[in-house]
Amino acid sequence: MKKGFLISIEGPDGSGKSTLIKELAQFYNEKGVEVVVTREPGGVRIAEQIRQIILNPDHMEMDEKTELLLYIASRRQHLVEKVLPALERGALVLMDRFIDSSVAYQGYGRGLDLGAIHWLNQFATDGRKPDLTLLLDLPASEGLARIQASRSDDVDRLDQEDLSWHEQVRQGYLAIAKKDPVRFVQIDASQEFQKVLADALDIVIESWSL
Amino acid sequence: MKKGFLISIEGPDGSGKSTLIKELAQFYNEKGVEVVVTREPGGVRIAEQIRQIILNPDHMEMDEKTELLLYIASRRQHLVEKVLPALERGALVLMDRFIDSSVAYQGYGRGLDLGAIHWLNQFATDGRKPDLTLLLDLPASEGLARIQASRSDDVDRLDQEDLSWHEQVRQGYLAIAKKDPVRFVQIDASQEFQKVLADALDIVIESWSL
Repeated sequence: MKKGFLISIEGPDGSGKSTLIKELAQFYNEKGVEVVVTREPGGVRIAEQIRQIILNPDHMEMDEKTELLLYIASRRQHLVEKVLPALERGALVLMDRFIDSSVAYQGYGRGLDLGAIHWLNQFATDGRKPDLTLLLDLPASEGLARIQASRSDDVDRLDQEDLSWHEQVRQGYLAIAKKDPVRFVQIDASQEFQKVLADALDIVIESWSL
Repeated sequence: MKKGFLISIEGPDGSGKSTLIKELAQFYNEKGVEVVVTREPGGVRIAEQIRQIILNPDHMEMDEKTELLLYIASRRQHLVEKVLPALERGALVLMDRFIDSSVAYQGYGRGLDLGAIHWLNQFATDGRKPDLTLLLDLPASEGLARIQASRSDDVDRLDQEDLSWHEQVRQGYLAIAKKDPVRFVQIDASQEFQKVLADALDIVIESWSL
């Protein structure tokens, strides 16, 4: 049976992940490929309920380890219930955030132990990594400016962190990508979108032969 | 400053944990001790929301690792937000379930790796263990009969497991208690309640000098 292909799209909010995913999905849908578009945290009922707890802007008392554990719990449920069955069917799965978000945000951003985060990712995924990870890289200031322009009324708990925090997250992403250059491809997300899309398509087409 | 004292009360549903806790709390309240009575999963706002997800009887698709991770997340938040501050104030904290429930239910009951559960408990608690654990031991059939008699209309997801599963959990508790005889005291919960209470008071008074 044909094996599916798992692509995670990583990068800050405002880097254009969801627009890119929509375009990639359309491209492959038109070729008759089953495409499953999904996101973390969330994607299935239980994981969406966990998402509500994590992102509620009122939950300022949330401990950093609690936050990490909730992300990991939602990752597990989403993977087992939705992602693995789709890959079994041979689908192309496009995931908005996955294991690397925990390393970048909770590790490099919040300063939680990287070894612990890797342990938790391994526990939740049984070692299943993306076949390809597209990192949409953008200066933190630019990502924040784009978010603020697009959703001034709808700010989640993580948006409230300051610029230097978001810059730490970016540096985290770059460090992870450097460590695993086979899986990661970095794309300059400050380019105009058509160029970002063209770069991404080149990479995906090269990585996954239908 | 006087240090608090942390007692966890473990055992199956139906073993009389909450009645015992109520009586112990009253005994120490009358002596002028600050007593904090709390439970897992739950005890603070975020942990109660996690509890809703875990115990919802409709969530039959819940993966076993997801379940464990949610318990651990709720443990972390509850400990940091409620238990540790109470201990800092010198309070007696009576906890209905704690780290050992995960080992007994998710480890011995569901068959998840015991080493992983210990790792997660350590991560969530930074190694803080109860000063004393009272294990209310009861044959599984007796515990289930008591639950069914008391709440036939209000069955949570875990009540739906069968007798042999609950017996495995019991054997798990006994195994953990055997490994850590300093922290654990086992009480025969099939005795009449006044005898259970007397046994528990003897132990607590001996373990914690006011």
